[in-house]
Amino acid sequence: MANLTAIELVYEKFGNPTDVIHMKERKVPELGKDDVMVRMLAAPINPADINTIQGKYPVKINLPSIPGNEGVGLVEKVGKDVQKLSPGQKVIIIKPGQGTWRNLAVFNKDVLKLVPDQLGLAEAATLTVNPCTAYRMLSDFKPVREKCQVVIQNGANSACGQCVIQLCKTWNIPNVNIVRDRPEINALKDFLINLGATHVLTEKELKSTDIFKNKVINKPVLALNCVGGMNARQMIKHLNHSASMITFGGMSKKPVTIPTPAFIFKNLSFFGFWMTAWQEKATKRDKDKMWLEIINYMCEKKLHASANKLVKFDSYKEALSNSLTSQGFTGCKYILDFGSKN
Amino acid sequence: MANLTAIELVYEKFGNPTDVIHMKERKVPELGKDDVMVRMLAAPINPADINTIQGKYPVKINLPSIPGNEGVGLVEKVGKDVQKLSPGQKVIIIKPGQGTWRNLAVFNKDVLKLVPDQLGLAEAATLTVNPCTAYRMLSDFKPVREKCQVVIQNGANSACGQCVIQLCKTWNIPNVNIVRDRPEINALKDFLINLGATHVLTEKELKSTDIFKNKVINKPVLALNCVGGMNARQMIKHLNHSASMITFGGMSKKPVTIPTPAFIFKNLSFFGFWMTAWQEKATKRDKDKMWLEIINYMCEKKLHASANKLVKFDSYKEALSNSLTSQGFTGCKYILDFGSKN
Repeated sequence: MANLTAIELVYEKFGNPTDVIHMKERKVPELGKDDVMVRMLAAPINPADINTIQGKYPVKINLPSIPGNEGVGLVEKVGKDVQKLSPGQKVIIIKPGQGTWRNLAVFNKDVLKLVPDQLGLAEAATLTVNPCTAYRMLSDFKPVREKCQVVIQNGANSACGQCVIQLCKTWNIPNVNIVRDRPEINALKDFLINLGATHVLTEKELKSTDIFKNKVINKPVLALNCVGGMNARQMIKHLNHSASMITFGGMSKKPVTIPTPAFIFKNLSFFGFWMTAWQEKATKRDKDKMWLEIINYMCEKKLHASANKLVKFDSYKEALSNSLTSQGFTGCKYILDFGSKN
Repeated sequence: MANLTAIELVYEKFGNPTDVIHMKERKVPELGKDDVMVRMLAAPINPADINTIQGKYPVKINLPSIPGNEGVGLVEKVGKDVQKLSPGQKVIIIKPGQGTWRNLAVFNKDVLKLVPDQLGLAEAATLTVNPCTAYRMLSDFKPVREKCQVVIQNGANSACGQCVIQLCKTWNIPNVNIVRDRPEINALKDFLINLGATHVLTEKELKSTDIFKNKVINKPVLALNCVGGMNARQMIKHLNHSASMITFGGMSKKPVTIPTPAFIFKNLSFFGFWMTAWQEKATKRDKDKMWLEIINYMCEKKLHASANKLVKFDSYKEALSNSLTSQGFTGCKYILDFGSKN
């Protein structure tokens, strides 16, 4: 049988994604005995993908490279030693760096995970980064899930922030959500409250809020920070004694500044989180437990993909350029749609 | 028997120590059955004492108050249910807030610890704060003692810094010590090297040092920070992946500023340490283990009190005013000498 042809996005040098990324046809290689050919359905454009292409992400890339770190597809064909997958099944790519921005690909069976047919397309395509980051940050630092303790987060309207809110709702964790002020702030607040937010405050409202002083809600024991700068500093002021703050992003491009008394007399502690690093170290058992739970929540409609837009593969330049600029109040995520039949 | 008279330092309102502290005579109260009368030998003036008198320390004080949180004395008399102490024995005060700046005092037996006769006066008087802080910070955050991993500290010439260096030497922990530049920098470096410092660098030397790049010494896994500001930021740059920084002071009066990538990609974590809080939560077993070890090191001359000056009790105003201003390159500690016979 003649080899099939794949259409792939690829870049030969680091730079501005709309300049360096181009579309290329390539014969799909022969299947090794442990390989699986996957007809891709969808793959998102994540901030980390953009930074990787720009050469700003601290992960080693061998050029030329196919971008894309997560995605969903249908099994097309399996190598002779692959037992647990068969053609037509829906799979997600669970290991970063596989290159998901192509319509047809050969992956090692170990980087694929079978998911239920009824799992939504956007949910499946974006499962491994934001929902997992939210899950881990709510699980690995403070027992907020077991004790229903209060969590505060900034950038609450981000893709990860929306997952945090939905998991908090599912796990009965009271949550306080900080967003930037904007003309459509009321619509944004309604949207987040509807997702499960307990309180939504603008950065300015956070400064003068008395919800903690008046015991409308307990002081947070866990803070999730993807902004940094003054916003993070305001969150620190409202934390409970011995609380922890987890930094997993720095959208303000400002560092986190911590007053000495917050360390000594309030006993706060500060950690970072990076999903890629977690994945490299975690056991299969821990990963499987997390994925199973997340997939179940998604199938039960307790956890939805963040606001997103499917873009035809041919229009990838438009999707890339839109991903580089903020769009809409929830930071719409662009998902490449490879046009395969689901 | 007529009550004995004690001479005490006391303050009725918060303020500048040299203004609000005065000397007072008072009849020593009757001994309760669990009480011990102690003829004080010596008690240090610590920065926390000064801040407490100024009303700037976050510990509740009922006024009027006798300052002083550590010290050493001789048992004068014991209450009828006190079994383990007898007149003439040397004891230290192991619980903060007892008021040690007086020549004769009645304490509950539980705040006293018997120490060996041969324990040096300055060592005994200053045992519970700095040596214990150094001990805990080297023990509770990273396994530097078990694995002989590298520690870095700033303010290395402070009383606590000197204890850190001596414990590092005793425990074979390679250590890098940061100090401010000063005219007598070479004498200071010699002094710290002699105590057990592996490397001593000025803040400026730290910026451009290649000892880590050239593998003269491994990158530190533990940083001890009592300065903050730019100095702390420079230390952060040289830390190993997954290292921790412990903040226990802020001599620069500047906060600790942490770049986002240090959290996400370097997985650094940041904690505070406060001896007072540790003491309140620790088990008797953990405290006894620590004190025994520290007392042994002091008796074996492996751990010396930091540079200090004994000041006659009558000259307390001079000692207070000198404690408020930096003196000498090692920040000489003033110790009140109550003139009792040792």
